[in-house]
Amino acid sequence: MKEFNKQVLLAAHPEGWVKESDFKIADSPMPVPGAGQVLVRNEYLSLDPYMRGRISPRKSYAKGVEVGQVMVGGTVGEVVASSDANFAVGDKVLGSLGWQLYGVADGKSLQKLSSAKLPLSVYLGAAGMPGVTAWIGLLRIAKPKAGETVAVGAATGAVGAVVGQLAKLQGCRAVGIAGGPQKCAYAVEELGFDACVDYRAGNLAKDVDAATPQGIDIYFENVGGEVLEAVLPRLNDFSRIPLCGLISDYNSTEPRGIPDLRQFLFKRIHLQGFICSDTPEVWPEAIRQLEGWISGGKIKYRETIVDGLENAPRAFIGLFKGENFGKLIVKLR
Amino acid sequence: MKEFNKQVLLAAHPEGWVKESDFKIADSPMPVPGAGQVLVRNEYLSLDPYMRGRISPRKSYAKGVEVGQVMVGGTVGEVVASSDANFAVGDKVLGSLGWQLYGVADGKSLQKLSSAKLPLSVYLGAAGMPGVTAWIGLLRIAKPKAGETVAVGAATGAVGAVVGQLAKLQGCRAVGIAGGPQKCAYAVEELGFDACVDYRAGNLAKDVDAATPQGIDIYFENVGGEVLEAVLPRLNDFSRIPLCGLISDYNSTEPRGIPDLRQFLFKRIHLQGFICSDTPEVWPEAIRQLEGWISGGKIKYRETIVDGLENAPRAFIGLFKGENFGKLIVKLR
Repeated sequence: MKEFNKQVLLAAHPEGWVKESDFKIADSPMPVPGAGQVLVRNEYLSLDPYMRGRISPRKSYAKGVEVGQVMVGGTVGEVVASSDANFAVGDKVLGSLGWQLYGVADGKSLQKLSSAKLPLSVYLGAAGMPGVTAWIGLLRIAKPKAGETVAVGAATGAVGAVVGQLAKLQGCRAVGIAGGPQKCAYAVEELGFDACVDYRAGNLAKDVDAATPQGIDIYFENVGGEVLEAVLPRLNDFSRIPLCGLISDYNSTEPRGIPDLRQFLFKRIHLQGFICSDTPEVWPEAIRQLEGWISGGKIKYRETIVDGLENAPRAFIGLFKGENFGKLIVKLR
Repeated sequence: MKEFNKQVLLAAHPEGWVKESDFKIADSPMPVPGAGQVLVRNEYLSLDPYMRGRISPRKSYAKGVEVGQVMVGGTVGEVVASSDANFAVGDKVLGSLGWQLYGVADGKSLQKLSSAKLPLSVYLGAAGMPGVTAWIGLLRIAKPKAGETVAVGAATGAVGAVVGQLAKLQGCRAVGIAGGPQKCAYAVEELGFDACVDYRAGNLAKDVDAATPQGIDIYFENVGGEVLEAVLPRLNDFSRIPLCGLISDYNSTEPRGIPDLRQFLFKRIHLQGFICSDTPEVWPEAIRQLEGWISGGKIKYRETIVDGLENAPRAFIGLFKGENFGKLIVKLR
C-alpha cells in the first residue's frame, strides 16, 4: 500500500484575525529524501504565536510562507529513512518540518533527541524554542539581580511560564499577567509566581500597580497593547524590556506603539527586540540548563495537546484568543 | 563697595512652550563659601535642551528646579575665594553653578581646567557634557562598525555635530538632519557629514530615504517627533538607537511615542535611553579623547555666543526653535 502525506497549506494571507479558510488540508505524495537528507514521521507539532508573522502579507523578521506552501512549524518525530550517516531509522529528532505528517530535511538541520531526558513534546516547549526564548531574554538580555521585580505577560504561556520560574530561580519577585482566574491561580499556586494579575478583570492598571509595590525592573514583553500600556508607568529607572513577541498585535491591522517615548529617556530604559534563532550558539547551554531545572522539578510546564493535524488551524486561531492553557501542541499520531 | 550677585530664577513651571515670563532676573547678595567650598565667578554659562525637563511640572530624570530657585546649568569660571586646599584663587574650573554671575560649590563637584588645551567655552560643548553625551551614546552604546550608516538629528547642534564627526572617525557613513539649507551645508562642507537632510524642506521621509541608500544602522536620537517617524522605516535589522534627548517633544503637552513597536521586534532593534551623568567613570577617557580630536582638527565645533546673563531666557527659548547655530553659550563677563 502506498503511503500518502497529509499537509496544512496556506490558502490565503490573512488580514486581521486568522480564519480557518486561510488554511487548506491536502494529501500529497510521500516525500523522498535526497542525498544527505532524512525522512521523518512527525509525532508532535508546535503551534506558536510567531507563526502569525510568517503568514502576514506585511514584512516580518523571517521569510514568509507563500500561498500554497506548507505552514512552518517546529516538530519532533522519528526517522523512517535516512541518507545521512548520522541518523538511523528509529532515531527521535527535533526539527522544523512544518504542519505535515511526514517531512524531509537536511540532516544538519535536525537535532537528535535519542538520549533525551524528558518527554519528547517538552522539546517543543519548556526545553525547546519557547524555553530558550525565555532563557535568552531574561538571563542574557535583561540580566536580573536578586530582589528585582520581573513582570511578564501571557504568564502561563509557553514562554511566560518559564520566564516567571527563571525569575524566581534568580531570587526575583515574579509578577504575571494572564487571562482569567484559573490561569492566574495556576501561575501563583503551581508555577510559584508571587502575584498574577487577571487582565480580563477590568482593573488592569490598578491591579498591576498593586502587584508591583517596588515597581518593575524587567518587563519581559511578549504581549504588547494594553498590557504594555499598564506596565510602562510602573517601570523603574534602568529597567529592561526584552521584546520577543507582541501577540495582542499580531492580528490587528492598525499597529500599536509606545505612547510616550520620554519615559524611555527619563528612566533610561533598555528595550531590545530579539529572536531566539539569531543566537544558535547559546542554545546548547540553554537547553542543558532548562533540562536540568525541569528534571529537578524547578521548572514546571503545562501542555494543551490537540489531537490530529486537521485540528491545527482551529487550535492556532484559539492561541490568539487565549484558549490554550500552557504550551499548545498538536499530536500527529 | 559691596559686590552683588545676579541670578536667573524660575518664576513659573512652563506648560507648553517656555516663555520669558517663566524666568525672573534678580540681584542677590554675594554667596559666601563654607568649609570645603569654593566661590567661582562664572565666565560662560551653557544652555542645553535638557534644562527644559528640569523646569517641567512633569517628572523628568533629575530633580527639578522649584519656583524661586536659580536655574540649573553648566558653567566655566574662575575661583575668587576658596576653602578647599585643592583650589586656589585664579584657577579656572568647570562646574554646574547655574544661571548666575557667581556661585558657590563643594570643591569636589568642580573640575580644574587650569591645564586645559582648548578655549574654556569648549568644555561646555564639544569637550564637555554634549561631547561626552555623543561619545557615550555612539561609542559605548551603539558601537558602530566601519561601513555602517549613522543618522543623527539636530546635526549641527552641540551633540549632533560630535556624533557625526565621531561616526566619520569610525569609518561610517554619517547622515545628518537639520533645519534649513545653511545648517545642512555646514554639516556637509565643514563637519564632513556625507549627507544632510533639511527637515524644513517639506520632503522629510523621501529625503531621508535618498540619503540612506543602505538603510540606517544607528539612529542617534536627540530629537523625536517627525524626525523619528521618518527614520524608523529606514532602520536595518539589528540597528541601535541611543536615546539621549527628545527636543521636539519637550515643549509639547501631548507626549509622542513610537508608532509601531512591531518594527522593534521584527528588526531586533536595540533602544537605550541614557543620561551622560549616569556614568561619571567614563568622562575622563571621553574628554581626553575628545580634546585630542579637537586639538588635532578632527572634530570641529561652532558656537553661538550670547552676551549677558539677562539674555539667557530669550536665547534658551530660541534653542527649541532652532535659532542657535552650534553650541549655545552665554558670555557672562
